[in-house]
Amino acid sequence: MGADGYKKLDRTLVHKGVVVSFYKEHMKLPNGNVADWDYIAHPGGAACLPVTKDGEVILVSQYRNSQDRITLEIPAGKKDGNEANEVTALRELEEETGYRADKITHLTDTIPAVGYSDEVLGLFYADNLIESKQNLDEDEKIDLVKIPLRKAVDMCVSGEIIDSKTVTAILMYAFTVAKITY
Amino acid sequence: MGADGYKKLDRTLVHKGVVVSFYKEHMKLPNGNVADWDYIAHPGGAACLPVTKDGEVILVSQYRNSQDRITLEIPAGKKDGNEANEVTALRELEEETGYRADKITHLTDTIPAVGYSDEVLGLFYADNLIESKQNLDEDEKIDLVKIPLRKAVDMCVSGEIIDSKTVTAILMYAFTVAKITY
Repeated sequence: MGADGYKKLDRTLVHKGVVVSFYKEHMKLPNGNVADWDYIAHPGGAACLPVTKDGEVILVSQYRNSQDRITLEIPAGKKDGNEANEVTALRELEEETGYRADKITHLTDTIPAVGYSDEVLGLFYADNLIESKQNLDEDEKIDLVKIPLRKAVDMCVSGEIIDSKTVTAILMYAFTVAKITY
Repeated sequence: MGADGYKKLDRTLVHKGVVVSFYKEHMKLPNGNVADWDYIAHPGGAACLPVTKDGEVILVSQYRNSQDRITLEIPAGKKDGNEANEVTALRELEEETGYRADKITHLTDTIPAVGYSDEVLGLFYADNLIESKQNLDEDEKIDLVKIPLRKAVDMCVSGEIIDSKTVTAILMYAFTVAKITY
């Protein structure tokens, strides 16, 4: 018997995608009913909010097919095998922004889409950036944007920054680490 | 030609799930390469942070198969057809918590999983709650938890609250509406 009276009867792969895969589950519910539930499997990942010594955050601007629009996000990526979240976050930071860091600090973990995806992302910040070299995948096209922290908070409130991991990292860093007042 | 030099060549349904469906896309990239990309279609939804007159937030505790664990979340649900976000948010608030509200206030919208899902959630808060009656779906099993706002912020920072929409709503409400200091 699983948590809280739920019991997984079976889980079947129905489509293996490029990054995520679709499974179908049969769950026995606490009331005895059996339900079909969706389950998206994701390799997990990590993201890092880069903060310059001048108090600006560095965001990546990129096209996202899921929304058919360009979004502003913190550098992020999926895990390579079983690597630690810190390793993923440091790699993506350097590849996407051209800054590296000797040390990153954990903010929190986040479950982006708890209703259907097993994805968990580790969220970090780095405020001791060292200039390095951007190193994008052949298929990536990314522009960098530097925004003062307080303005980035305003852009989360106004909806100009709308990506969940990015908003979580900016708000948590701004109010609980940098302790800005609003 | 789509945004920023990307062009969608085709999108094909590979599996229709209970709530979300899996599509496969062929995209022409700015560098001329053609890539397979995943695309999860979701009906969209809304969520509402309920705040009592005593400054407590009301969260729902429920089992989530995607994580095989119980999570603390604000009441949320998917849209019924083309209804407005406010309608979804007000309905889910009342059904899941047993409180209704005459008025809710928009906080922001959020894209939970921009890498693969088209989901957009409208986030609201309600601080003028009126006692009503919980009205769960037959298959829902939900416990209610009331937590002082400042403690809820602490639980976001510590990772006890980890669901992305819930953390976004609590942090944005606490720091930009209630203007707590940390």
